[in-house]
Amino acid sequence: MQILDGKATAARLRADLAVEVADLSKTYHRPPQLAVVLVGEDPPSHIYVRYKEKACAEVGIHSRTWRIEASITQDKLEELVSGLSASEDIDAVLVQVPLPGHLDLLAVQALVSPEKDVDGFAPVSVGRLSIGLPCLTPCTPAGVMYLLKHYGISCTGKKAVVLGRSNIVGKPMAMLLASTEANATVTVCHSRTADVAAECRQADILVAAIGKARFVTRDMVKPGAVVVDVGMNRTETGLCGDVDYEAVKDVVSAITPVPGGVGPMTIALLMANTVEAYKRRLAVSETAREGAKA
Amino acid sequence: MQILDGKATAARLRADLAVEVADLSKTYHRPPQLAVVLVGEDPPSHIYVRYKEKACAEVGIHSRTWRIEASITQDKLEELVSGLSASEDIDAVLVQVPLPGHLDLLAVQALVSPEKDVDGFAPVSVGRLSIGLPCLTPCTPAGVMYLLKHYGISCTGKKAVVLGRSNIVGKPMAMLLASTEANATVTVCHSRTADVAAECRQADILVAAIGKARFVTRDMVKPGAVVVDVGMNRTETGLCGDVDYEAVKDVVSAITPVPGGVGPMTIALLMANTVEAYKRRLAVSETAREGAKA
Repeated sequence: MQILDGKATAARLRADLAVEVADLSKTYHRPPQLAVVLVGEDPPSHIYVRYKEKACAEVGIHSRTWRIEASITQDKLEELVSGLSASEDIDAVLVQVPLPGHLDLLAVQALVSPEKDVDGFAPVSVGRLSIGLPCLTPCTPAGVMYLLKHYGISCTGKKAVVLGRSNIVGKPMAMLLASTEANATVTVCHSRTADVAAECRQADILVAAIGKARFVTRDMVKPGAVVVDVGMNRTETGLCGDVDYEAVKDVVSAITPVPGGVGPMTIALLMANTVEAYKRRLAVSETAREGAKA
Repeated sequence: MQILDGKATAARLRADLAVEVADLSKTYHRPPQLAVVLVGEDPPSHIYVRYKEKACAEVGIHSRTWRIEASITQDKLEELVSGLSASEDIDAVLVQVPLPGHLDLLAVQALVSPEKDVDGFAPVSVGRLSIGLPCLTPCTPAGVMYLLKHYGISCTGKKAVVLGRSNIVGKPMAMLLASTEANATVTVCHSRTADVAAECRQADILVAAIGKARFVTRDMVKPGAVVVDVGMNRTETGLCGDVDYEAVKDVVSAITPVPGGVGPMTIALLMANTVEAYKRRLAVSETAREGAKA
């Protein structure tokens, strides 16, 4: 049984990105710039943002976080995000989720221009991903694909089952697995699925992203399956995933631990997306400069 | 066994739309305006466009087709489509597919603004559909959903299998079936699926959209399934679908014929989308007028 070590894989990716960023920052006299918008006092969101800031520092990305009071109006928040998205000085923009209940998240996300949309949640980014056009890909599913590839796990012709149909994980995860690059046969399960256990038992690759502690039990896993656990649930006994790891680990061929699996990959892919957005903007301004010279 | 009569259902929808359009055209002193861009000499495309023009005339939509030589450059085509998309006089724009091989279809489709994108193929339209935001929905999958609903077939908790992962049918079909409105558990199969027959046999609702004549045989259909045939293949013996209709019809609970099933629904939903785009633009100009009065 192989443990898919997201912590180590993410650390290596961050180190590779740091080398690249150091080189580019020297050549172009500026580091990548990430703007983070954090609204309200949700404690896990504050923790995640600190992780992201720490990863940025390690990679050499200059990050700045706008910490906004929960009482901000929709108009004011939209004004802020539009401004960041339009700013010449900023390469990448992310709006930390969730937002306080009175705010319309989708309307805010739609204001991030696709070339800066490092979360990949703006409608045009989602559409480009679905169609198969180049785009910045949502960090969690992109992190899962990176991890599978890193461990030499091919998806072609495999049956993949995705538990959950959220905009953040389930839907883009299904798109990536079913793409012409990955070529899995994908089934998406959700709260209205008649027999989730029967679906799961067919999966060669099972991705759990429903936010229910230890939902996936031993009898739901096909022997030899690859199990990816996106869950991060707080229980009385501490953090745990959507998969009953202890019960399942001897049946699978590979599995991600929680913590140390998908979580670090998500943040590492945010770094990769930010560097990607930065490089594209450098290339554009390079082309413009050459055009001006000619 | 129920035949899902797309021809009759589409005729009724067109008739309903005609009443609505007559009423609105009288009130607002103008009919809906659809611009169709048809490039090159592909014979089926010319036939489809004539069907669309005929349906427009029946509903009371004013359609105008730009018939363009196959040799048009990408730049010129983009200029035309951008112009139509920006025109104050036009409510809806569609680019007939396929385009000649030297043209970049996705780049052209991306130029149709989402409020006029009656084919629903622009990236932002696709993204809005995936996320669950209001949008104009691709006509073929929307037509399938309309037909199922018209015949009282619920998708909730059902297993749906979609054969094919095209941007035009397979992908948006899967999105609609898996949405929180339809609530099916959806599997998408494609050329790299290991055992298509086994997947199909699990389907309560089977949608075939792969463009292979009579691909779905009797042994691939679960008794009592609902079978939707999006195929339209030219064979030596005439037009036929992706489903072996004669072999399958006694096993299923419901099935669409070819022709007379999904085809007419696709065109009827194009009419519905055009009327929807027109109504939204009327509402916007109404609001603007009231704003000016105040």
